[in-house]
Amino acid sequence: MKKKVLKFGGTSVGSTDRIKHAAKIIKKESDLGNKIIVVVSAMAGKTNELISLSKSVSKNFSKRELDVLLSTGEQVTCALISGALNEMGIKTKSFMNWQIPILTDGENNNARIINMNVTKINNYLSSGGIAVIPGYQGISSSGDITTIGRGGSDATAVAIAKIFDTDSCEIYTDVDGIYSTDPNKIPVAKKIDKISYEEMLELSSLGAKVMQSSAVQTAMIYDIPLQVRSTFTDRQGTKIFNKDNLDYSKAVTGVAYSKDDAKITLQAVEDKPGVAAEIFEPFGKNQINIDMVIQNVSSDGKTTDITFTTKREDLVKSLEILKKNNNIKFKNLSYKNNVSKISIVGAGMVTTPGVTYKMFRALAEEKINILAISTSEIKISVIIDEVFTVQAVKKLHNIFNLD
Amino acid sequence: MKKKVLKFGGTSVGSTDRIKHAAKIIKKESDLGNKIIVVVSAMAGKTNELISLSKSVSKNFSKRELDVLLSTGEQVTCALISGALNEMGIKTKSFMNWQIPILTDGENNNARIINMNVTKINNYLSSGGIAVIPGYQGISSSGDITTIGRGGSDATAVAIAKIFDTDSCEIYTDVDGIYSTDPNKIPVAKKIDKISYEEMLELSSLGAKVMQSSAVQTAMIYDIPLQVRSTFTDRQGTKIFNKDNLDYSKAVTGVAYSKDDAKITLQAVEDKPGVAAEIFEPFGKNQINIDMVIQNVSSDGKTTDITFTTKREDLVKSLEILKKNNNIKFKNLSYKNNVSKISIVGAGMVTTPGVTYKMFRALAEEKINILAISTSEIKISVIIDEVFTVQAVKKLHNIFNLD
Repeated sequence: MKKKVLKFGGTSVGSTDRIKHAAKIIKKESDLGNKIIVVVSAMAGKTNELISLSKSVSKNFSKRELDVLLSTGEQVTCALISGALNEMGIKTKSFMNWQIPILTDGENNNARIINMNVTKINNYLSSGGIAVIPGYQGISSSGDITTIGRGGSDATAVAIAKIFDTDSCEIYTDVDGIYSTDPNKIPVAKKIDKISYEEMLELSSLGAKVMQSSAVQTAMIYDIPLQVRSTFTDRQGTKIFNKDNLDYSKAVTGVAYSKDDAKITLQAVEDKPGVAAEIFEPFGKNQINIDMVIQNVSSDGKTTDITFTTKREDLVKSLEILKKNNNIKFKNLSYKNNVSKISIVGAGMVTTPGVTYKMFRALAEEKINILAISTSEIKISVIIDEVFTVQAVKKLHNIFNLD
Repeated sequence: MKKKVLKFGGTSVGSTDRIKHAAKIIKKESDLGNKIIVVVSAMAGKTNELISLSKSVSKNFSKRELDVLLSTGEQVTCALISGALNEMGIKTKSFMNWQIPILTDGENNNARIINMNVTKINNYLSSGGIAVIPGYQGISSSGDITTIGRGGSDATAVAIAKIFDTDSCEIYTDVDGIYSTDPNKIPVAKKIDKISYEEMLELSSLGAKVMQSSAVQTAMIYDIPLQVRSTFTDRQGTKIFNKDNLDYSKAVTGVAYSKDDAKITLQAVEDKPGVAAEIFEPFGKNQINIDMVIQNVSSDGKTTDITFTTKREDLVKSLEILKKNNNIKFKNLSYKNNVSKISIVGAGMVTTPGVTYKMFRALAEEKINILAISTSEIKISVIIDEVFTVQAVKKLHNIFNLD
């Protein structure tokens, strides 16, 4: 007998028909003799609907009350899932965040789960019942309702897997699993059967929004195996493990890209300690995210070039910030607003020589100019002209044997 | 400084614009220096929407989970009202049923409030804050969410008025107050300024569904003055008091009617102890409500006639029940399915001789035949042919000086 967390995302519970379907999946797992904890998201669209209600009441809606409001979304799903399971003759009960309780730390709208009481739910599981729990929420030490950020139901599922020491944590969603690249744009994209946490994180941060990144991080820290799979097919999904448990026959696991980027280059910046901090400090204050930052070793010992990317929508504001900033001296500022970032991701890269060369060579063959390069242990990213995005992704997908 | 309960019904919080409007009313009362506890219903239509979701999941939806589901309706309104008040710079906070807590007794879907903890909220009121509380719900002794029956937000408001010993309890709704008869059908209907609990109960039970009857009963038992008023006008509403505090210049306060009734008469029923119980026992078991029951003194000492009314939709089932019931002997069964009940209600009736005569005389003048009569201390009801309903109400409204 195994103890399992089954987490259903918004589209998987997006209608009462889908809720009944999810209940069948839960029943099947229960019939196999597993002890089940179900974690649910709000029905698809519900959270946005509630947010829009709050906005039409107030532009600066109280953060505390927003959490009171939004937490009803998952509560509704909990009741409906439990009702559907009851209808099938299954012993089940919903447990609200305050009934468990799920304790959180940090501020409203952005709290984080620190602990849960396991007694009530473990007793209920032992009595043969299925526990249904709302994702995305908890209560603070002062007893207020809190939420843990968009997509936080994944984080709840992982936290439950950890705290209840379950054998697995299955994330039911509207896709088959993690793909080697975007299957909507690149039809040869393949579902990945197994992937490491690190690769998953790199792919997530590059636009493969299958799971919330912080949930994957938590799973990685506590070594909780995850499985992402579709609610709507019986196909095996993607298993996400510690990379030590994976066998890498391929150097590259996936090719990701992000569009809507812009690139800014500051030429001949005075090369002195703290200059990067001085450049980027006002960006943080203005809520502008900086993505890649590339700085070469100074050639003359006095000046250096700094290139960085940001979201295209932030370009104008970014240029204004740089012009206003009197603390930094540079000779020239250039920018390009139609670039995209192409990344190859693979935990096997470290042990496979020549991956970098192979990537650059492939892009050269396609006559695609590389505007900037950034690498990490399991990822190589390049900035290119946006028009070449699909061509580059297809080429890389092919030469790294992912088709 | 007064302590007040302000309760807003579903239509009063039916949209974000209405929620903002309700917030203005609350602010006005708060600006006058009052300590305010706000009780809210779910937004109009919300409870039905949730019920219909539950029905499409299961025909026998779990009662426990239905309460988990339905309680989200008021929770949403609480958050939105608090958000709207915050936006106006007012110190305010929502308190969920389990945060207070509101303790209930009895089964799911039909619980009743037995107590509340006052400390947290009294402290908050003393600190100058406005407390916003969901109506219609509480938690059971085992910590489950419970609801207290449709319209239960009125009951919550009255319970809070009692437990927090407030100076008043104001019910904001979509009508101006209690009317002398149905203003939609009888245009000369007048708003009643003051009315006793008993009269209000009689009028409520006869179709004037402005307030939930059990809430009025509770107010009566604990002598809590109520005020029913419109959210949408500044007009004074109707004050509901103990009848000892009212001065009755008029014998009759209002004329009520209920349609969709059916009348059944059993002729020459064996007149022996327990016969009425034997007749009506199976009705209770079949969830059929019996309204008026009239039994005359036996003329021959052996048999008597029994007439009663029920909802028209229950007529066929009622006749079947009577035919199947072998415990009772009677000579003849007659029924009429198109009748209505007309009632005059007035606490001043007791001290005003001739009210009964005046009523019957007036109906005779209109050539309306009375099929059955039933009286209580503050009410006289007659059953007549349904076609004469409006004619009878108009006549009675006029002769008792209510126009």
